[in-house]
Parts: sequence; structure tokens; C-alpha cells
Amino acid sequence: MKPLPLPNNSLTAPKGFAAASAHVGIKQSKKPDLMLLVGEGPCRATAVFTTNQIPSEPVQVDREHLKRSASFRAIICNSGCANASTGSQGIANARTMCEAVAEQIGCKPHEVLVASTGIIGQQLPMDCITPGITKLAGELARGSEADLAAARAIMTTDLVPKAAVKRVTLAGKRVTIAGIAKGSGMIAPNMATMLGFLTTDADISAPLLRAALKQAVNADASFNRISVDTDTSPSDTVAILASGGAGNPPIKQANDDYQAFVTALTEVCRDLAYRVVHDGEGATHVIRVIVENAKSARDAERIARATVDSPLVKTAVHGGDPNWGRLTTAAGKCGAAIRPEKLSVFIGRHEVYRAGQPVGVGRKQRQLEQAMQRDEVVIRFDVGLGSARCEMLGCDLSREYITINADYHT
Amino acid sequence: MKPLPLPNNSLTAPKGFAAASAHVGIKQSKKPDLMLLVGEGPCRATAVFTTNQIPSEPVQVDREHLKRSASFRAIICNSGCANASTGSQGIANARTMCEAVAEQIGCKPHEVLVASTGIIGQQLPMDCITPGITKLAGELARGSEADLAAARAIMTTDLVPKAAVKRVTLAGKRVTIAGIAKGSGMIAPNMATMLGFLTTDADISAPLLRAALKQAVNADASFNRISVDTDTSPSDTVAILASGGAGNPPIKQANDDYQAFVTALTEVCRDLAYRVVHDGEGATHVIRVIVENAKSARDAERIARATVDSPLVKTAVHGGDPNWGRLTTAAGKCGAAIRPEKLSVFIGRHEVYRAGQPVGVGRKQRQLEQAMQRDEVVIRFDVGLGSARCEMLGCDLSREYITINADYHT
Repeated sequence: MKPLPLPNNSLTAPKGFAAASAHVGIKQSKKPDLMLLVGEGPCRATAVFTTNQIPSEPVQVDREHLKRSASFRAIICNSGCANASTGSQGIANARTMCEAVAEQIGCKPHEVLVASTGIIGQQLPMDCITPGITKLAGELARGSEADLAAARAIMTTDLVPKAAVKRVTLAGKRVTIAGIAKGSGMIAPNMATMLGFLTTDADISAPLLRAALKQAVNADASFNRISVDTDTSPSDTVAILASGGAGNPPIKQANDDYQAFVTALTEVCRDLAYRVVHDGEGATHVIRVIVENAKSARDAERIARATVDSPLVKTAVHGGDPNWGRLTTAAGKCGAAIRPEKLSVFIGRHEVYRAGQPVGVGRKQRQLEQAMQRDEVVIRFDVGLGSARCEMLGCDLSREYITINADYHT
Repeated sequence: MKPLPLPNNSLTAPKGFAAASAHVGIKQSKKPDLMLLVGEGPCRATAVFTTNQIPSEPVQVDREHLKRSASFRAIICNSGCANASTGSQGIANARTMCEAVAEQIGCKPHEVLVASTGIIGQQLPMDCITPGITKLAGELARGSEADLAAARAIMTTDLVPKAAVKRVTLAGKRVTIAGIAKGSGMIAPNMATMLGFLTTDADISAPLLRAALKQAVNADASFNRISVDTDTSPSDTVAILASGGAGNPPIKQANDDYQAFVTALTEVCRDLAYRVVHDGEGATHVIRVIVENAKSARDAERIARATVDSPLVKTAVHGGDPNWGRLTTAAGKCGAAIRPEKLSVFIGRHEVYRAGQPVGVGRKQRQLEQAMQRDEVVIRFDVGLGSARCEMLGCDLSREYITINADYHT
């Protein structure tokens, strides 16, 4: 696949933010492994988290902080160790990270959000993290270099950093929304994704910020509509800090400014989500599944999810083979209402199955093969039983995925 | 993995059955692709089928025959083409296969069951199948050679034939139950499995035969408790023919003889199911997941299924790596009731997680690695929230799976 161009700026593009990142000794590889994002003043914040019932210890601490505090100052995130399934020691370590940040920047520990990503089940090496935080607090900066370093410092098996930025004018004031994200395995978010950190200088009330984030992550082809490998991580977190620095009229109700903000935020989330599947472990193609006219929203999502998650669909895309029987199988197995006589299936623009019958596939074999070999393979189901729609993104399954995950040793 | 020993006899070991198999021209590889199993007299029969909502055309025809007829004489099965998603032409072809068998052996078409396995979405080459049936009807035989040929003729990507046989004495009469099965991809049966054909000479009423088969395929580690790749095939069928030739007192109620029959039938189903995962596409290890003390049977199954289906668990087993964080993640993501403080997780005999905390894993790293490198890797969850249990079998995910499925072209 062609690489996706990366924007020059991200986290510190909105007014009121600075960031610093470094290798502090968590990863053996000497790659960057600690990132600190700081709001210059108090920010509104919200986050959505994994639905995994054994959430990571940082997720547990963040949930507590979001309940307790109305204002936030920072996000601290390490890569190389997930601090998940680590029990009371893991909770203590997550708290220590927040305390160290609070001490350095002058705020309360519960005004800090914390995230960790990497191997599950190991304790964090606090002897290098605490001094690392002190070091980063002295190096906070704005601009493209700091932003790129932040996107790199949260990577694990990611091959490329992921960042997005979007500007929208609200009542004459330019508002900026930006973010970074990391993949690239254990990706089947459900109410959240892997790690995504967003900043904005919009002035927006906390309840509306929360509503906007929920809507944006659940939009078609956004964070909750991607899957690399069906495994919902215990660490999934998308958090946003809003500094209010743009000087827009405060958004306190669901007016036109709010709608414009949600639209822009959704675009940033979609952009980042696309980058996550594009850089999915071992991915050589993006798969976009569009389900139309399903009986219910739940059915539309089930069909889309079953298709992007099917190892046989994923390997067919990897092989560039229009083996469309695997598409009808995926739709038929997932428990959604399906009536073969109402169903149409398309690969790219080409119909392959209609009303319970194959559609003269032999004659257009060459076009089908071309459609299956594009960087982005589009699969569409017209279910014919209602009006619900869902659009999901996934990626193919390659030998490289096995290499990465059989050899990613504890 | 060490190969599993194959019994000398299978389908024709029970009294009253004969079989024939050959290459008739469906597969380009010249490997056997048509199998005919015939009961010498009328048999009782029952079958369980796929839950896929776009079932194959042979499954549709079989369901009709089982509703219509009380007695059965034969099963005809081809490999190399699944006759699935083939519409009205596919239905006509499945009927023609039954008619050709009926004409040859002297019975009615609805006394024949039909199955097909292979690529989905292509029409059967009837010009070689109909003469093939005539040829097979002239070559029906009993004994180990005919049995082995039958097990081979239903193979697709299977590397080895799969057969099982079990004898049980009922009121002084020896009753035999035997079967063959095929895998080895698109395996996540739900109410049935891939193809499994069973024979017995037991004299048993049709309703009890049906109850026995249902119980046997749903037992722990039997057909409905295996998964190679999460994809539920549209062709899944397990059918049994009972000739009554053993001369046992007819089983007409759920008495001790019935229980003994169910136990033996369950053993045959488990034996065949084990062979299917052992020969799962690309498999180098069998994964046995045992869930104990779950809140409900549904929860126990969810946890077991999420674990055997997790690509990250499968690749960890492939890499021989005791990356147990992937086990807590699988249990936590599946929607079953889980409380970390009640949960224990074991790899082999070694506890790795207890009551929300890792259990001194570093000290026993070597034993854990050994437990992860066995031919059969045993993973056990003690959920601590009830008394429900489930045992499922799966296999690891290897580069070879990708090779097989990216290159298995239409």
C-alpha cells in the first residue's frame, strides 16, 4: 500500500498545549517510550475506554480521575509495557506516574490521565519512569518536532506514527482539533479503540465534549468501526483535552457550532482510525465493508464486523482472490437477519450475488481480480430487509501478522 | 505434532453398510472426489446442520428429505465444489445427485442424503458426477480399503483422512458406531460441524437417534466445541445412518442401553472432532481450553470460544510463548461475567493469574514455556462465579494457514 501522508502538526497545533517525549529505558530497543502532553492551563477532558472486563490498571485509575475531577492538565503515556493484569502493584504504579507529573507541572494527581501500552502482565520499570517524567517536564515544547516525537513515543508494533489535524471556523474564530493514535494489534475496539489522544482549543462544556467524543468514535469507519484482529485490548483509551484557547463563543448547547465541532472531531477520529487499520499488523490492504438496508443497526454492524473479522475473507483479500463465497458465508454466519432472496453482494462496483443466485461471475473475473487487488478493497452488502447502515474498516491477514505475534515474546 | 493413529475400519464396520469412492473429475488434482455410502436395507437417519443463514443447497435438500422420509438408504458426497450459494441451479443439481443414487440402488430420491464440500459459489460439473454415481454403485464394498477410500474422498485441504470407531455391548449384543469426518478450514461449527458421516448397526428409534446425535455433537470437546478459524461453513452436516443390524433389543426409551449408546456415540464424535482440529489448516498445536465455575453455561462457552478463536492466543501458542496476558484479555473481552478478583488462569498445571494479580510468573518461566510447547496446550480458567463448565478445542495460527487460504483460488 502507498504510505499515508502525515500532517506536519498534531497535538500542539491547538492553542494551549505542549508535549515532550523520549526513550527512558522501558523498551530494550532504545526507541522512544514515554510521552507527556500538558495543557498550559486547566482543560476540560473526557475519554472513552475499552469494554474489556479486565481493564488495564491505568484505565481503572483514569475512570476514577474522570469521576473525581472537572479539570485536567496532562496525559502521561508509556509504550513497551501495558501495565495490564498487574493488580495492586499496577494500580500503585499508575498512580505514581500521575503523582510525578502533578509534582512537576504543579497540579493535583487526579488532574492527570495515564495510559500504558505494550506487553500485558508485566510490572512497569518505575526506576526509569519516574526520573523520565522529571526529564520530560523540563523539555516541553510546541511544534512539528514535538508532535512527531509524541506520535512515535506511543508506538509498539506500529510501523508508522499516526496523527491528524482539522480546523473549523466557529463564529469567526478558528478552532483546531488534533490527535495521535497507536495500533496496531489487539485491535477490535468496542466503545473505544487502542490509544488515541486528542487536543482541541475549542471552548466547549464538559457534557457536550463527552457527547461529541462518543458520537465521533461511534461514527461509520471511526474508532469503534475498525478491527485488525478481533481482540479487544484491555488498554483501549481515546481521551481528549479541550483548552478553550481558540476564543470561540463557549459551546453550551447542541447548536450549529456544536454540530460543526462534532463533524470536525469525527473527521479527525476517522483519519486516525484509518491510519490504524492501514498500519494493522502485517496489513497489505485495507478492507472497507459497507452494509446497507439491514433490518437493524445491530444487524448491520454484525454483518460488517463478521466480514472484516473473517480469517477467510482476510486471506482472500491478501491473495487478491475474488472468492465471494466467503462473503456470503460471513454474512450468513453472524446471526443477523438475512434472506438470500433479498441479498446483493458487491466487490468494488461489481455485483457477484443477487437474490440467492450467483451473478455471471465468470465473465467479469478479470475486473473482480482488479477490484480485489486495490490498496483499499470495498465490499458491499445490500441486505434488502430495512434501512440500517454500517461501515467498518479492517485489513488483510498475512504471514507477517503471524511472524509479529508468534515472535512478540514476553 | 505426532500423527494420530487411524483405525483400520470405519463406515462399514457396523453391520449393513457398504461404500465406494473414486476420482470422477471434479478436482483438477485427480484426487478422490466422490463417495457413496449405502445401507443394505432401510436405515433410520438423522442429521444436524449448519446455523449459517445462507445454508448450502445440499443442506436445503437434506432438510426437506429428513422432514419427508422416515427411512434412508444412502449418503452421496462430493469434494472439490461446495454447491453453496448456487441458487436454483444448485438445488436442481443436488436433487439430480439423489435421483441418480436412487435409480442405481433402487430406492426413492428422498431416501438419499447429499453433501458437497469445496469452493463456494461454483456450479457442480454434473457431466462427470452422474456417470460417477453409476460407476460407484457398481463398486460398493465393505472393509478397511473401502472405509479408508471414503474418508479420503471427502477431503479438501485436509492433510490426513479422519475416521473413528467404537464398540459397545447392549444386552449381550455387540453394537458398533463408526464415522468419518473432514475439516479443515471454515471450521467454527454451531449446532453441527463440517462434514461428519456416522454409521451404526444399533436398533434405535428415530426420535432417540436424533436426541443422541444432538447430545453427542454438543458434548464438551465434540463437534460443536471446536474452532479452527471462527468461520461457520454453509455446508456443515453431521449425519448418522442406523441399520439395526446388530440385533440389540430395540432402544425405544431413554434407558441404560440408550445412555450407553449416547456415551459411545459421543466418544466417536469427540474422536472425529479432535482429528479435525489436529488437522486444522496450518495447525502445529492443539489448544484445549477448559472453563470451570462460570456463572452460566453460555458464559463458559463464550470464554472458551473467545480464547480458542483469539488470533493473539493462537499465535502465542504457535510461538510457544506463555504470553498469558492474551488469555486474560480473551476472557475479558467476550461479554461473559468476569470479576478479576475471582478469576484464576492456568497454562498446563501452572497458575499464572489469581484474584486480579499475576502469580510469580518469572520464577517458573521455563516450565511455562514447556507447557506452551506441547503438542496439546491446555489452558484453564477458574472463573469463580458459579458452576458451569465448557471444554473447547482449537488450534494455533501459522504462516501455513495464510498460505493455504490466500492461495486457495476460485
